[in-house]
Amino acid sequence: MTETTQMRGVLSPVITPFKADLTPDANRLIAQCRWLLSQNVGLAVFGTNSEANSLSVDEKLMLLDMLVEAGLDPKRMMPGTGACALSDSVRLTKRAVELGCGGALMLPPFYYKGVSDEGLFRNFAEVIERVGDDRLRIYLYHIPPVSQVPITLGLIDRLLKAYPGIVAGVKDSSGDWNNTKAMLDAFPGFGVFAGQELMLLDNMRNGGVGCISATANVNPGPIHQLYANWESSEADRMQADVAATRKFIQQFPMIPSLKQIVAHYSGDAGWARLRPPLVELTAELSTKLLDGLAERNFAMPGLPKVQKGAAD
Amino acid sequence: MTETTQMRGVLSPVITPFKADLTPDANRLIAQCRWLLSQNVGLAVFGTNSEANSLSVDEKLMLLDMLVEAGLDPKRMMPGTGACALSDSVRLTKRAVELGCGGALMLPPFYYKGVSDEGLFRNFAEVIERVGDDRLRIYLYHIPPVSQVPITLGLIDRLLKAYPGIVAGVKDSSGDWNNTKAMLDAFPGFGVFAGQELMLLDNMRNGGVGCISATANVNPGPIHQLYANWESSEADRMQADVAATRKFIQQFPMIPSLKQIVAHYSGDAGWARLRPPLVELTAELSTKLLDGLAERNFAMPGLPKVQKGAAD
Repeated sequence: MTETTQMRGVLSPVITPFKADLTPDANRLIAQCRWLLSQNVGLAVFGTNSEANSLSVDEKLMLLDMLVEAGLDPKRMMPGTGACALSDSVRLTKRAVELGCGGALMLPPFYYKGVSDEGLFRNFAEVIERVGDDRLRIYLYHIPPVSQVPITLGLIDRLLKAYPGIVAGVKDSSGDWNNTKAMLDAFPGFGVFAGQELMLLDNMRNGGVGCISATANVNPGPIHQLYANWESSEADRMQADVAATRKFIQQFPMIPSLKQIVAHYSGDAGWARLRPPLVELTAELSTKLLDGLAERNFAMPGLPKVQKGAAD
Repeated sequence: MTETTQMRGVLSPVITPFKADLTPDANRLIAQCRWLLSQNVGLAVFGTNSEANSLSVDEKLMLLDMLVEAGLDPKRMMPGTGACALSDSVRLTKRAVELGCGGALMLPPFYYKGVSDEGLFRNFAEVIERVGDDRLRIYLYHIPPVSQVPITLGLIDRLLKAYPGIVAGVKDSSGDWNNTKAMLDAFPGFGVFAGQELMLLDNMRNGGVGCISATANVNPGPIHQLYANWESSEADRMQADVAATRKFIQQFPMIPSLKQIVAHYSGDAGWARLRPPLVELTAELSTKLLDGLAERNFAMPGLPKVQKGAAD
């Protein structure tokens, strides 16, 4: 197996901008990704918060190609490549490897419910075998509140034994620290990312490698600072600070709120668009969100401003 | 709006055969569909029981094209065209209309949970507007046990008012007769299909138009006979007979069982293959299933036999 550097740190499931006709807007996305990298936050493009499952495979491939063509470092990218259809997962994962992405974040197939670990093992094994490239680094995506299909400890154990190195880690978005802790304890050296920053410090103190968090889309700098300084005496205070921001934002519908915040702080109203079935915030909620952030002196330093209407 | 005949009767969510490399097998599928039509059962290809969400959009388009090229009547087809991504739903639905399909069975986008009726309305409205063809007939697919995203009465009401005629009916796979009855009562003339044959007679007696049932894959003749004779004095006995067969089969995992039954009665073992995350029956369950059917004198008259290994 090729020696590679394990992915670590804070990653953002980058929100996906849409043009007025609801096609994905590669230029806005490139600018946003460049800004996130400047804040030391990696690119978990095509995550849940990216509306990735509202994009076709072709749309995802186009965006990923354009991000790499734009000169962004693929080693900082962990695109979501897990789909319901095996053929889609293979196609996306293969391209991610070809482009040199640091990892691939894989949902299990999520349409059929109550499926067996044997069936899930076969799914991931088929993807790994068909991609057939030692550079592949799979991060399993455990997000039962949305996917309704869990990644169990037993499944991880079996995959790690069959594909050591290739199966590189997990994103635990269960929201259950006991589950994250169980993964950390069971698989030393496995790349365990917390699913949000509320558990970032606990995760680091127990052998984890970072977090992949929705709110890293809007608050990347402070979350990275916590990651970078988790062993310092300031860590608990920093954890409390990022947690306060997170807890305020997560009172609102997450994806529309992230887009509304970027739209507001960039001065680019087009950022607020979502694809169905998601809908934008009501005017009332939007005001409450933005007023609350202003009261907290929230800022997005260095956020690129797209000239009004230029990208529409 | 173009005058069309509303789809009625019994349809089968046709199981999808796979070759040894797990690519879809168009030739086996064509033969199976031809047999189902010979039994007076229509083709709800790409349904839940078709493992449709384990197929890519390109694979579905290829299969649909080949079914129509093979001379099967598109008016008897109601392909599943609802996907998580708006762009995928539009592409599939557009092709179904272009090919002259009698209807399109549409799942809501099913990744994001707890979405609003407003978001779901926008999803279906965007598909209808982008397909932009008066021949389109949408059947909404309500299957909350699997999709976890319901089609509410309020959503149907709003869609019917915005797109009368185009929004043609529903498949109710909730398993809740009270819900089916509520749809029948609220929307007279709406094409309500029961999600299985257990409620076929009740559905017909209350103004429904038929059923779309997993077990129509293996027991099409008797279910169609019940549909065709629902007003006869024999109807209750016929309902009891098809219900007994259904209740026996549904004790086993449905999709692997349907495939195992077809594999057995056609003598074509390749039919038993499934794509991950689904897995085949254990030998023990398979024996129990097939022995039980033999005891019941179950038969599949006229089922085509593929020469052993010919399609592999």
